[in-house]
Amino acid sequence: MITVTTKQEMQQLVIQHKSSGKSIGFVPTMGYLHEGHLTLVKEASKQNDIIIMSIFVNPLQFGPGEDYDSYPRNSARDKKLAKESGVDILFMPSPENMYNSQKSIGMTVLNRTDILCGVNRPGHFDGVVMVLSKLFNITMPDRAYFGLKDAQQFAVVSGLVEDLDFPIELIPIETVRESSGLAVSSRNVKLTTEERKQAPALYRSLQKAEDLIKEGVQDIDAIKGVVEDHMRSQMQAEIDYVEILSFPELAPVSIPNGKLIVAAAVKFSKARLIDNIIIEV
Amino acid sequence: MITVTTKQEMQQLVIQHKSSGKSIGFVPTMGYLHEGHLTLVKEASKQNDIIIMSIFVNPLQFGPGEDYDSYPRNSARDKKLAKESGVDILFMPSPENMYNSQKSIGMTVLNRTDILCGVNRPGHFDGVVMVLSKLFNITMPDRAYFGLKDAQQFAVVSGLVEDLDFPIELIPIETVRESSGLAVSSRNVKLTTEERKQAPALYRSLQKAEDLIKEGVQDIDAIKGVVEDHMRSQMQAEIDYVEILSFPELAPVSIPNGKLIVAAAVKFSKARLIDNIIIEV
Repeated sequence: MITVTTKQEMQQLVIQHKSSGKSIGFVPTMGYLHEGHLTLVKEASKQNDIIIMSIFVNPLQFGPGEDYDSYPRNSARDKKLAKESGVDILFMPSPENMYNSQKSIGMTVLNRTDILCGVNRPGHFDGVVMVLSKLFNITMPDRAYFGLKDAQQFAVVSGLVEDLDFPIELIPIETVRESSGLAVSSRNVKLTTEERKQAPALYRSLQKAEDLIKEGVQDIDAIKGVVEDHMRSQMQAEIDYVEILSFPELAPVSIPNGKLIVAAAVKFSKARLIDNIIIEV
Repeated sequence: MITVTTKQEMQQLVIQHKSSGKSIGFVPTMGYLHEGHLTLVKEASKQNDIIIMSIFVNPLQFGPGEDYDSYPRNSARDKKLAKESGVDILFMPSPENMYNSQKSIGMTVLNRTDILCGVNRPGHFDGVVMVLSKLFNITMPDRAYFGLKDAQQFAVVSGLVEDLDFPIELIPIETVRESSGLAVSSRNVKLTTEERKQAPALYRSLQKAEDLIKEGVQDIDAIKGVVEDHMRSQMQAEIDYVEILSFPELAPVSIPNGKLIVAAAVKFSKARLIDNIIIEV
């Protein structure tokens, strides 16, 4: 594995690989790697000649008061894990290398954002599509891999690739979970010991909704109520949202029908966790 | 020469060429080809294996009341000229093929637009950067060729390529002129016989500014005044603007210094013409 720290070098290297007919699989991350990321690499390795992973904590997608400065970082450990998992090129640019001092182009996400995490993170997805546009142009992948834990991000990135005609196939990968059911996340390390015990209830609460829908319950608000009650009884965390929406359109539904996402976000003392289940009714 | 009418086919074809190590030169146009476009093709042919020309009258960059419907089109003639000039692949998509019915991403140009043509064409350059982002992703060129007649467009596209890290070298090409000095333009056909006689005065007026600056005249407003007086005396056309700015920043200057653009736009009865001179003081 080689590590590249500037976009200029990265682009040159990719151009060489592509001109010799190599296919590129790309796994964008913000580092602090866990099983979820490594599953993306594993999947990418099956389908591509060269695997590029980026590690870049993108300042543009953090709002004021969000956890940009305290977002967990551990590049020595990340390098080791990336190498072991089969990454060929690790791209770790600095914010200064990635962004010009004078910005010429603004990008705005026009739909699928006024719901779920988008509501409380104005501008978040604008920052996501900007950095991904850049990363796509820098790494020129044939395929890019995204975990479904951030299902809204996957929906937004699908819109980006479609609208701007990026010649890239997006590959969604199932959420990786601990045996407790807790979705693996870089933010889990910020849970206290007690919160870590409570956190698996987030997934179990979503499963309650899945069960009710499968039993034929039609009242969306009632289902959400059961989920919220279960959360409150199991976790000392603030409920940010519980939503049941069509997927990937992320539009409200009056009764359970078609492809649905049951999604939730909760705030523990120092970590905000998200999770979702996608079901076909 | 082959003609391709969908972005899907175009992308597939380019991927084949690129994986066999071929370099791609790209000439984006809105058709109604003239000597200016063919000069871009000629230059591109010197530097690349495969020349792609796009012909697409982009609805997104025309404002309400602008000449989208009446913009001159002649695809039979365009095909002939493109073939003769050395184009390998002519890309002529429909608006329906290019744009999704539901738009997910908005792009905004944040600088270099509140001046020159940008002032009176709100949203114009937003439409330009959107269509070029798409065309860049569809044709994946190593080099893209732009005439300097639309110098503001060149400045804006430079910002786009830099901000989004498109792996593309932009090549600026000098404005092609008739022997009268009139810059060749698709819109020239919309001039009446009498206006056609007057139109070369646009360039001669800009040359007046160049002469004065070279003579050491320092007063920008006085120089602009001479240009405007010359225009009014020679053309029955409405002056849209006369500007003397730094290039490529397009910022106002207090005295002539460094690299400057003298740019003007005038409106004849059915055609709005632009021209510019770039000079080093």
